[in-house]
Amino acid sequence: MIRAGIIGATGYAGNEIVRLLLGHKDVEIAWYGSRSYVDKKYAGIYQNFFRLVDAKCMDDNMEALADQADVIFTATPQGLCASLINEGILSRAKVIDLSADFRIKDVNKYEQWYGIPHKSPQFVEEAVYGLCEINREEIRRARLIANPGCYPTCSVLSIYPLLKEGLIDPATIIIDAKSGTSGAGRGAKTDNLFCEVNENIKAYGVASHRHTPEIEDQLGYACGREVRISFTPHLIPMNRGILVTAYASLLKNVSYEEVRAAYDKYYQDEFFVRVLDRDVCPQTKWVEGSNFVDVNFKIDPRTNRIVMMGAMDNLVKGAAGQAVQNMNLMFGLEETQGLRQIPMCP
Amino acid sequence: MIRAGIIGATGYAGNEIVRLLLGHKDVEIAWYGSRSYVDKKYAGIYQNFFRLVDAKCMDDNMEALADQADVIFTATPQGLCASLINEGILSRAKVIDLSADFRIKDVNKYEQWYGIPHKSPQFVEEAVYGLCEINREEIRRARLIANPGCYPTCSVLSIYPLLKEGLIDPATIIIDAKSGTSGAGRGAKTDNLFCEVNENIKAYGVASHRHTPEIEDQLGYACGREVRISFTPHLIPMNRGILVTAYASLLKNVSYEEVRAAYDKYYQDEFFVRVLDRDVCPQTKWVEGSNFVDVNFKIDPRTNRIVMMGAMDNLVKGAAGQAVQNMNLMFGLEETQGLRQIPMCP
Amino acid sequence: MIRAGIIGATGYAGNEIVRLLLGHKDVEIAWYGSRSYVDKKYAGIYQNFFRLVDAKCMDDNMEALADQADVIFTATPQGLCASLINEGILSRAKVIDLSADFRIKDVNKYEQWYGIPHKSPQFVEEAVYGLCEINREEIRRARLIANPGCYPTCSVLSIYPLLKEGLIDPATIIIDAKSGTSGAGRGAKTDNLFCEVNENIKAYGVASHRHTPEIEDQLGYACGREVRISFTPHLIPMNRGILVTAYASLLKNVSYEEVRAAYDKYYQDEFFVRVLDRDVCPQTKWVEGSNFVDVNFKIDPRTNRIVMMGAMDNLVKGAAGQAVQNMNLMFGLEETQGLRQIPMCP
Amino acid sequence: MIRAGIIGATGYAGNEIVRLLLGHKDVEIAWYGSRSYVDKKYAGIYQNFFRLVDAKCMDDNMEALADQADVIFTATPQGLCASLINEGILSRAKVIDLSADFRIKDVNKYEQWYGIPHKSPQFVEEAVYGLCEINREEIRRARLIANPGCYPTCSVLSIYPLLKEGLIDPATIIIDAKSGTSGAGRGAKTDNLFCEVNENIKAYGVASHRHTPEIEDQLGYACGREVRISFTPHLIPMNRGILVTAYASLLKNVSYEEVRAAYDKYYQDEFFVRVLDRDVCPQTKWVEGSNFVDVNFKIDPRTNRIVMMGAMDNLVKGAAGQAVQNMNLMFGLEETQGLRQIPMCP
Repeated sequence: MIRAGIIGATGYAGNEIVRLLLGHKDVEIAWYGSRSYVDKKYAGIYQNFFRLVDAKCMDDNMEALADQADVIFTATPQGLCASLINEGILSRAKVIDLSADFRIKDVNKYEQWYGIPHKSPQFVEEAVYGLCEINREEIRRARLIANPGCYPTCSVLSIYPLLKEGLIDPATIIIDAKSGTSGAGRGAKTDNLFCEVNENIKAYGVASHRHTPEIEDQLGYACGREVRISFTPHLIPMNRGILVTAYASLLKNVSYEEVRAAYDKYYQDEFFVRVLDRDVCPQTKWVEGSNFVDVNFKIDPRTNRIVMMGAMDNLVKGAAGQAVQNMNLMFGLEETQGLRQIPMCP
Repeated sequence: MIRAGIIGATGYAGNEIVRLLLGHKDVEIAWYGSRSYVDKKYAGIYQNFFRLVDAKCMDDNMEALADQADVIFTATPQGLCASLINEGILSRAKVIDLSADFRIKDVNKYEQWYGIPHKSPQFVEEAVYGLCEINREEIRRARLIANPGCYPTCSVLSIYPLLKEGLIDPATIIIDAKSGTSGAGRGAKTDNLFCEVNENIKAYGVASHRHTPEIEDQLGYACGREVRISFTPHLIPMNRGILVTAYASLLKNVSYEEVRAAYDKYYQDEFFVRVLDRDVCPQTKWVEGSNFVDVNFKIDPRTNRIVMMGAMDNLVKGAAGQAVQNMNLMFGLEETQGLRQIPMCP
Repeated sequence: MIRAGIIGATGYAGNEIVRLLLGHKDVEIAWYGSRSYVDKKYAGIYQNFFRLVDAKCMDDNMEALADQADVIFTATPQGLCASLINEGILSRAKVIDLSADFRIKDVNKYEQWYGIPHKSPQFVEEAVYGLCEINREEIRRARLIANPGCYPTCSVLSIYPLLKEGLIDPATIIIDAKSGTSGAGRGAKTDNLFCEVNENIKAYGVASHRHTPEIEDQLGYACGREVRISFTPHLIPMNRGILVTAYASLLKNVSYEEVRAAYDKYYQDEFFVRVLDRDVCPQTKWVEGSNFVDVNFKIDPRTNRIVMMGAMDNLVKGAAGQAVQNMNLMFGLEETQGLRQIPMCP
Repeated sequence: MIRAGIIGATGYAGNEIVRLLLGHKDVEIAWYGSRSYVDKKYAGIYQNFFRLVDAKCMDDNMEALADQADVIFTATPQGLCASLINEGILSRAKVIDLSADFRIKDVNKYEQWYGIPHKSPQFVEEAVYGLCEINREEIRRARLIANPGCYPTCSVLSIYPLLKEGLIDPATIIIDAKSGTSGAGRGAKTDNLFCEVNENIKAYGVASHRHTPEIEDQLGYACGREVRISFTPHLIPMNRGILVTAYASLLKNVSYEEVRAAYDKYYQDEFFVRVLDRDVCPQTKWVEGSNFVDVNFKIDPRTNRIVMMGAMDNLVKGAAGQAVQNMNLMFGLEETQGLRQIPMCP
């Protein structure tokens, strides 16, 4: 039985890790960390776990946690994991960090976009970017996983095959993304009140969102050169789900079948990436509650562009689900263990 | 392996039966019945099942189905199951009817409230009302289950212990219920369009809703005499969930502990009924996607009334989940098999 | 031109007063009070007023405000108006208080339900309860208006005629109310985050909500004796709207026409109260953005009860609209001036 | 008093025309046309008009209507206006067509994108595209107005100044648009049911939506050459509102001030187009219920692109409001008459 500890267990991503791990036959949760709720019953905060979880919340003592856990999930704001981690911890427990601390290999870039100093640059090189479908083998051997951001996961998986196969021009990539409000976290901010979000839509972080360099790095690895993208996230009046609509110019005249073959080349054996049938647009509802990413594309011969689309649940494949998938890989378990939830609809 | 057939598989309840059975280790689905979509791929209608279900929709030939299935779920409008069922079918397959056809023992009452003649009155007596927590033993031996309505399930479970224990006056029961829109089905009606339901709330079927006699019958069995209630359902702008707020006058001066003991007497060993901690009001979000019913109560000494509350997912415990729970009982399986989904939040 | 000042202009009710007064031909707003945003542009907080309002936010100096304004609206938490008001202010400006400070004539009762001492008990007697359709003449002569609560407005108007006419038994009144989330205010609380409210419904303040004594007082005045009710509010995933479903036992055998006549007796000349056609249930969507209250009823001969229903926009007739209606009466203007907005749908 | 007739009065756009005209001091509605509801009370379908509208629905006899009305609004599916209109009608009444029949000057292009033959090509040349801020003078003299589509209105107004001023490369324009569900109309389709739209987002009509050529035509007029764009609409779980996020490459190195000056050049005297303050992103909530379009932009020096954003209410400026604005211009009224509704929030 793998013992798991969660730091940040009362955020939405932390709560989702709990939901998934409770249904995972090889894992038991040893530590529900939440600085804000220390000594309060976890199920008193998330009543969905009433009678399913008896534990009380613990603090974020990562040293103590490393003694009790085989794997530590940090579902915390940027900077926390980097400020707590050290070699002693990593030698005792595997760490899956859901924050951005170890996602960007260039520490200067991290510090510039996030506006904070990096407290543990010595682990950046070692950390593996946990996009399972792309870095599976490195993940298996990793001690420290940088669990990808929600927008980057959906964006990269939607675009990767075409970039890798040289079908699209990297300089023309534009990503217009839409996210449910759980992506904004559980902090009590006026902007996230029901009445401010409901019956409303807006862009935010235009030309400045922190997921931009993360996406650019990953797309850059795919095509072997530096990539600059336009990335615009939008806040949608729904709880869960991310939809990515990405645009790029085609580098050659391609048929539906050729593009489809590119997607199939990378995803046909992937359980969690579903390339939809021709002309079916991904919808977030079709993946809700599951670890699936649904992708598809549409060639527009009028403009010589291609529209690439991806839909996933931001809290599952975009956070907790991918973290568990990484854990499965790191511990040599079946990759889909605990992650076979069927999307719930309506 | 139990082979299951579903008639009405493309309605919301039918779709939910599919979701649950796909995760049930002892069942395989042999028949996706849907008159409207015969020969169309089931996963083309519900893309959440893309790559998970390959089958095409079949018609509602219950005779043929009875040869291929051990259990038949009918998730169809009133009247259909009664018009198709016969002794030959029941001798070959168990039937769990999610419509109202076999819920009311008085056929005249059924015909009066539903406005249609009953085509199979000969099976009404045999049919067992599938409220598992109350009729568990009869269900185990049944061939034909009348799966309870969504409002009755939540209402009866919220009120039952107090009525059974003689704490409340049956003549004073008022049930004010609120349901998500999936309860209205997937029919293309103007009243159920997004723009008509969103940012809106209304009562409907006031003093005339068809679940009234069903609730009255079950409450009547609990207290041993005829019961007349006021029942008002409301349409809520959310997909899933039913909340029942029920009122009754107390027959004696009772403490919190005494009422709590009444609930515990009936529910303390029930996995799916959770009596919440003192002063915690049930919320539909805390049970979403699961087979749980959360109940609680508040004594109001100022009025000598008690407020009883219950929350559940109308598509799970209120329909498909309870149907699977009934199936488990009928086939001697562990009662929670395939039904241990953890409520999803947010 | 009447000069109006608003204390609490950046709350949802305050913002709605601004919306209404900007369209009122006889009023100009002289003071946008908001302690939290002093010196910030009002239209920077509520961008709906971009280019329509130039003013900056002021503090809540009611003394200074009384010199500049003919009428002061206090849309602030309980206790603030009572702590600021005095004879000097009232001699210079009329005050319409949207808080509960002056709604309840029994100061002890106020202090008990609200848990704070009343700072200005000397004005309680003078204050007029501003339910325009019932207290119109007193309002015309008032200096200080206790603007009714949202739930009380909708509840009392739904029930008043039948109680006044002696058709229902006051001891049996149960009010089950449902409110959009704007009623919870704009404070940054976790419970009011989008993800907590959306796809969810719950009761709150069961048998303890502060609007209970206010409703009981008003119903008591209507029938000439003390009334005790059960009142349960619910939080609905929508921005605006209150729906009241009220139950009472009939004191005599009445026909539809007799009950209808009772409603018509009080409301047939009222512009803002619309008694709907037979069997049409009020919906909040039909009154959204307007000062209308739609009411109707259904007799249930099976239980000898009547179900009374009312729908209104909690921010208009339940707060800002009624405040403006009171202002119109106090200043001798046409009662509907600035309040003829047509409900917006969808 | 101008007498107005509406064909298609029971659709969402028609209903909104009624809402606006009831508040217009110079207009009375003479004809509520609705084939589906002939002889039914209009206020029985839209209860928001209860006691405000007494009329019954009429058919779509445009000949008879032209005798009774000074202006006819056709808020009907594509093809209907073109099939009914003739010189006799136009000689008696002005016509404002909210369908696409007269928006595209190239009849072949219309027939190709809409898949139906054009029944009145002889009026295409005469018809004026009613985008008031751009074609104001032609509108004043017109008999027949092609009221712009919702997406085109918001898209063109967001992009027009930069294209006209030669700041952006027309070949690089990508428009990613998001619309509330009222844009899909009131037809009873499964795809528009509450449970299908709520908690969901999807793209639709990718690289094939019918508003594409309309946008391209208008942008082409602005820059004096043919334009090909990528246009992707998305369905958002809200009733009202369109948000456009448009991308283009800059043709020169420009400062914030230079771009701002371009917007101001065209919009500084426009009442209905609000260029927001620097770095404020448009939100649909800030314009809800009003005829405003809020626009803004963000320069991205990293990619040499500019992001242009626009928000409006699809039923007002995107349909009924612009139609009334056109009417005001055609009849020599003040352009904002009946259109000064203040955006409603929350």
